Amino acid sequence: MAFEPFEKVALIGLGLIGSSLSHVMRREKLAKAISGHARSAATRDRAMELGLADTMHEHAADAVRDADLVVLCVPVGVCGVVAQAISGALKPGAIVTDVGSVKAAVIRDVAPHIPDGIHFIPGHPIAGTEYSGPDSGFASLFENRWCILTPPSGSDAGATARLTAFWQACGSNVDVMGADHHDRVLSITSHLPQLIAFNIVTTAADLEEVSQQEVIKYSAGGFRDFTRIAASDPTMWRDIYLNNKQAVLEMLGRFSEDMSALQRAIRWGDGDMLFDTFTRARGIRQRIIEAGQDTDKPDFGRGGQQSDPEALPDGKDPNP
Amino acid sequence: MAFEPFEKVALIGLGLIGSSLSHVMRREKLAKAISGHARSAATRDRAMELGLADTMHEHAADAVRDADLVVLCVPVGVCGVVAQAISGALKPGAIVTDVGSVKAAVIRDVAPHIPDGIHFIPGHPIAGTEYSGPDSGFASLFENRWCILTPPSGSDAGATARLTAFWQACGSNVDVMGADHHDRVLSITSHLPQLIAFNIVTTAADLEEVSQQEVIKYSAGGFRDFTRIAASDPTMWRDIYLNNKQAVLEMLGRFSEDMSALQRAIRWGDGDMLFDTFTRARGIRQRIIEAGQDTDKPDFGRGGQQSDPEALPDGKDPNP
Repeated sequence: MAFEPFEKVALIGLGLIGSSLSHVMRREKLAKAISGHARSAATRDRAMELGLADTMHEHAADAVRDADLVVLCVPVGVCGVVAQAISGALKPGAIVTDVGSVKAAVIRDVAPHIPDGIHFIPGHPIAGTEYSGPDSGFASLFENRWCILTPPSGSDAGATARLTAFWQACGSNVDVMGADHHDRVLSITSHLPQLIAFNIVTTAADLEEVSQQEVIKYSAGGFRDFTRIAASDPTMWRDIYLNNKQAVLEMLGRFSEDMSALQRAIRWGDGDMLFDTFTRARGIRQRIIEAGQDTDKPDFGRGGQQSDPEALPDGKDPNP
Repeated sequence: MAFEPFEKVALIGLGLIGSSLSHVMRREKLAKAISGHARSAATRDRAMELGLADTMHEHAADAVRDADLVVLCVPVGVCGVVAQAISGALKPGAIVTDVGSVKAAVIRDVAPHIPDGIHFIPGHPIAGTEYSGPDSGFASLFENRWCILTPPSGSDAGATARLTAFWQACGSNVDVMGADHHDRVLSITSHLPQLIAFNIVTTAADLEEVSQQEVIKYSAGGFRDFTRIAASDPTMWRDIYLNNKQAVLEMLGRFSEDMSALQRAIRWGDGDMLFDTFTRARGIRQRIIEAGQDTDKPDFGRGGQQSDPEALPDGKDPNP
């Protein structure tokens, strides 16, 4: 069944998620018109150049006027401020959603500003890359990824169904769950891995006896994998940790306990414990691949420079 | 200058590294003959089927007879036993090397078994994927990666030069350093990241309230990156930690201190500290890309199933 397009969708924020939504809405014809808002004039200009929106607005309230769907694509820490700013301009019957990686705090901050007759259905597409900004988006970002909706109790079922159909039309699978459960699930599948990646890059940067140049040259031993996610937007991530404090602290506590057990096994030479732990960890990869959530190609299929002739013209050594 | 091929190279172990060496030696004509040893009959048979060696031998000593170059491609924990087994069969003037991720312990275990007139030049190609076994190798594995040689003091300079030329002919860049420094550098660029990856997968597996299925479905938020390296060979990694204990424990101590500082910042809502840390971490990625040690494609360029038609025939949802 074809998706009945929205008359007008407002994208508040045109970073990786906002610009990707624009691309997929254009490709799949999910919106007859797209309006946009970005704080910086540079982003607004760039968004117009790229055709990400039909109109770009300095004030978020102007962008949401007459929109049937309003998508907040901004760091979770500013969702409340934005909601307050657009509150009076929302069209009766409109759906307001967001894309933040934290849901309880967004509901806490946004819901008080949503007038009666407007449907606030929080959402979180679990998709992204390490790049940011209006140029980083692409139409296939959401394909086969999961989008989680966390409608507060009493939400309009029709609005949830409509938003579900929208994300499915973007290529996503959709799940519905409570905001608190979402926040705990994401603290282990996203927030903690990301924090660890930021942290090990910091640890490596602060060594006295191993130079930065050595860390970089020999990063193919594993370290380079962590630097990719550590290149993600600092503002977005700061807001996530400040707004999902309890779940992240608990997962971090569990991680540290488990780390201590491995540390002790190394110190005392307990090879069996190490082997058993590593063997157990190995199994989950295959299940992620079977679930369609990662590639089974060695090394993520990244050719690096060695198989990308453009990146290494004439086979020249990039480290002469 | 073309590489003067070895008359005969012996590969002791035909896993990812051994089989990749065979492929690149065949392609670049670096050896006139290749002999091999693997403990299991199944691996020996498979190696012959794949043409990885001209002869496969049940006993390592038989494989090394008449070989000009012997490459130990086995977990570091068994290098000493293998060295003892081949000691009496080594050809005078031969070069013996290894590919282990720990160097001081390998020298401790192997050097006593190397007779006079044989050149033991330890080595470590910093290259790999998450796959293991004779089928996992490919000729381009070492291209543009670094190989570190750690010749003990008093080593024959000609042997080191010859082994350097060999690795360069395999496509690698070569650095020479002391074994202790190697072990400290690798503890941060490889051993600690790997340990953290094993550990977070364990932590995620042990949660009571978040199901395994949820961890898998929503792994695109960052977790899936860690599962790739956690799928690596458990025996190989167990041996690395048992044999690079001091350096790993020290790096882990530093990591844990830094983690505690981030934990405290989250608990007390210190957004500036988080933002500054994340911003600092972001910078190193670009330098790794510039150094040719990783791809700049978003998400490592992995299409996942969404851009791989074979993996997702007819655009079907793999999670029905």
